[in-house]
Amino acid sequence: MDECVFCKIISGKASTEKLYEDGKTLAFLDIFPASKGHSLVIPKKHYRTLSDMNEEDLAATIKTVQKIGKAVAKAMNADGFNVVQSNERAAGQVIFHVHFHVIPRKEGDKLSFSWPHLREKDIELPKWREIIKREL
Amino acid sequence: MDECVFCKIISGKASTEKLYEDGKTLAFLDIFPASKGHSLVIPKKHYRTLSDMNEEDLAATIKTVQKIGKAVAKAMNADGFNVVQSNERAAGQVIFHVHFHVIPRKEGDKLSFSWPHLREKDIELPKWREIIKREL
Repeated sequence: MDECVFCKIISGKASTEKLYEDGKTLAFLDIFPASKGHSLVIPKKHYRTLSDMNEEDLAATIKTVQKIGKAVAKAMNADGFNVVQSNERAAGQVIFHVHFHVIPRKEGDKLSFSWPHLREKDIELPKWREIIKREL
Repeated sequence: MDECVFCKIISGKASTEKLYEDGKTLAFLDIFPASKGHSLVIPKKHYRTLSDMNEEDLAATIKTVQKIGKAVAKAMNADGFNVVQSNERAAGQVIFHVHFHVIPRKEGDKLSFSWPHLREKDIELPKWREIIKREL
């Protein structure tokens, strides 16, 4: 099986514009950036999705997301930033090593991470709540 | 000053379809859902953005995001889910109490959290890396 590209970056077999590294996480620039300074944060351990991560790696990864978000926003004079994380192909995941996008934003840029709302007749909050609570 | 709407939900002054609660976090259904089961996860302590959170609340919140993501995906027979988190108005933040969207996805649904890439001539990874590393 071919090794995952993010695992290759971690092991040094693939090059990257590395921003930060600690024992559990790595941050580097996205090579297909949506905006200047668009970065990725990953755990060094290979997990397919967020659902698979252990608590320690999860805590370390979000801590690095925060650190990178603050640094990138400051460095790029951004007015804010988005964090986007996708699980499975249906959600747009392309590389199957869990990763968090950190995307700097400027007032009036053309990016959007909003979404259309469901129509009122399709919204059944109490029903959904009951179904979801059964899985918790 | 008017109290923040999420703080009102936490204190019980505003109603919600609550999914889960622990000492540090709360999860409930978004009243303007992008898809069935679209949920929000928040820390109980009021923070404006991700940048402001302390390490303990950050770890607790992402742990609840994972828990809700798994439960909602299973409950809704979703094929995946997105996590989206927005900081400041430029990034689309509307309620200024940090929150994570958990959005169940199905193959072929009409949602998209992808983005246009910058043009190659505008991409200056080594330069950005140096600027960002100075802030770390």
